[in-house]
Formats: sequence, C-alpha cells, structure tokens
Amino acid sequence: MSNDDLLHFEDLDPGQVFPLGPKHVTADEIIGFAMEFDAQPMHLDAEAGRNSILGGLAASGWHTCSMMMRMMADSYLLRMAAEGAPGIDYVKWKKPVLAGDVLSGETRVLDSRQSKSRPGIGIVSFRHELRNQRGETVLESENPIMLRLRSPEEARP
Amino acid sequence: MSNDDLLHFEDLDPGQVFPLGPKHVTADEIIGFAMEFDAQPMHLDAEAGRNSILGGLAASGWHTCSMMMRMMADSYLLRMAAEGAPGIDYVKWKKPVLAGDVLSGETRVLDSRQSKSRPGIGIVSFRHELRNQRGETVLESENPIMLRLRSPEEARP
Repeated sequence: MSNDDLLHFEDLDPGQVFPLGPKHVTADEIIGFAMEFDAQPMHLDAEAGRNSILGGLAASGWHTCSMMMRMMADSYLLRMAAEGAPGIDYVKWKKPVLAGDVLSGETRVLDSRQSKSRPGIGIVSFRHELRNQRGETVLESENPIMLRLRSPEEARP
Repeated sequence: MSNDDLLHFEDLDPGQVFPLGPKHVTADEIIGFAMEFDAQPMHLDAEAGRNSILGGLAASGWHTCSMMMRMMADSYLLRMAAEGAPGIDYVKWKKPVLAGDVLSGETRVLDSRQSKSRPGIGIVSFRHELRNQRGETVLESENPIMLRLRSPEEARP
C-alpha cells in the first residue's frame, strides 16, 4: 500500500465509525495468553473460572484488550498513517469474556487536533466498544492515536 | 498454596510497595506479539521502527501492558485472593519499549475500600510504574483489583 493510499489525519472526522470483529474466542487462546502473561486460575481452568465471580473460563482483561487491538488493526489501523498512541484514557471490563464468546463492536472517532509538540502529527481520539453474542457490552475504552498529516506544509499554526 | 496463605483485602495497606521485573524484552517477543495482535510496521521490523517516531523495533503498547501483567502475577498477584479487575483507570506509554530493553519498576497500593455491591469483596487501587535500563519511565498506570475479604463476616456495614 503506497503512502497515498493510507488514511491520514485529514481523512478522519468526528462521528466516523469502523466495525470491529467478529472474533470467536476459544478456550485454547484464553489459556495460551494466560500461561504467558496472566496465570490466574480463572484464566487457566474452567472449574476455577466457574468458582470465581467471573463464572467460567474467562479471558484475561489484557487479552481482551489485545484481541481488540487485533480487530482494530484488521478493520482500519493497518491502512492508516498511524504513529502509535501515547496511552489509554480508560478501559472498562464490563462483563467477563468467556470461552466460546463471539466479540464484535465498533470504533468511533470522537475528535481530532494537531499536535503542538510534533509537527506533521495529528492526534485523533477514538472510542471503542465490544459486545458479546448476546449484545452485552464487555469492553469500553477510549484512547488517542497519533496519525501523520497528509499535507504537513498546510498545517494550521 | 492454601487459602489462608493468600494475601486478602485486609492484608493490604496504602503505601505498600511490590517490585516488578526485571524483564528483558527480546526482538522475537516483540515481533511474536505483534504478529498475533498488532501488526503495525514499527512492531514487526527494525528498519520500519527506526523510520517511525518510536526510533526502533518497539513493543506494542498492549504488549508492554501484558508484560507488566506478567510481572504483577510473578511478584504478588498469584499469591493474592484476587477476583479480577473492573478496568484500567489509565495507561501512559511515556517512552517506547525497544528490543533489548530491561524493564523493572513497582506497584504501590493507593487505597482500598469494601465493595458496596459484592459482599465479601474489597477493591484495592494500585499504581504501577515501569522503567527501562536507563531509569526512564516507559509506562504508568493505575487500576483497581478485586480481592476477597479474609473475614467477610466481620465486614463493615
């Protein structure tokens, strides 16, 4: 993909929506992530999960975030002139993500502004939401992403 | 580990500190995580990283969060009566995490309170910080974690 084909800062407007998923979450994926990063019993074992307040074999919250990142990459981020993110405003893990769940949702553009400190870079705020196959929201998050300007020479002062 | 040996809500006090790391971050780990969850060029390829504002082959921010989770598990979380977390208050990715970096830091207990909605559960707020081998802070984050009470029958009303 040439640079011209990428979505740049100027191509994004508040209210724009990108779909996320669907993503089928398997027990093997949950356990694999947990063994590497978050070996709490409810992320490793179905019975331990049922005995926890999560109610079943449940994905680590960081795994759900990472799966969301993959859905973002597949939906839009890999065709954007993105330069990373300075952080995450918040994440709410509203319901457990259990083995067998199918996640989908969307990212919405909230607002955008040019960076004061980095010429040629704009900062776009995104709001992400994921729901399970019952329509229950499992994750909400907002975060800013840095995008290159298509025409930095026309940047507003 | 028996339930009695686990750290419960009553065992944690504001100001208490737990060490995190050290964790040596390899190029293979950065690329492996990126291929699964965040296939942006600066997370996959050293030259693309050098050409980005990150300045080298850089870990996905979610990878850094997941590595922090592993350091938390190894340091304290697997010996706590933990019941997961409702979310993340914020994450700041303050500097890139590059291949070859060694991360360490600490988690500090900020405050704790009993849950109003879940009997027998307390909510403890933690502040996490990771630094690289040059002492530069690469990540700051705060989040609440749910812990079981050792003596729920003595719970404050």
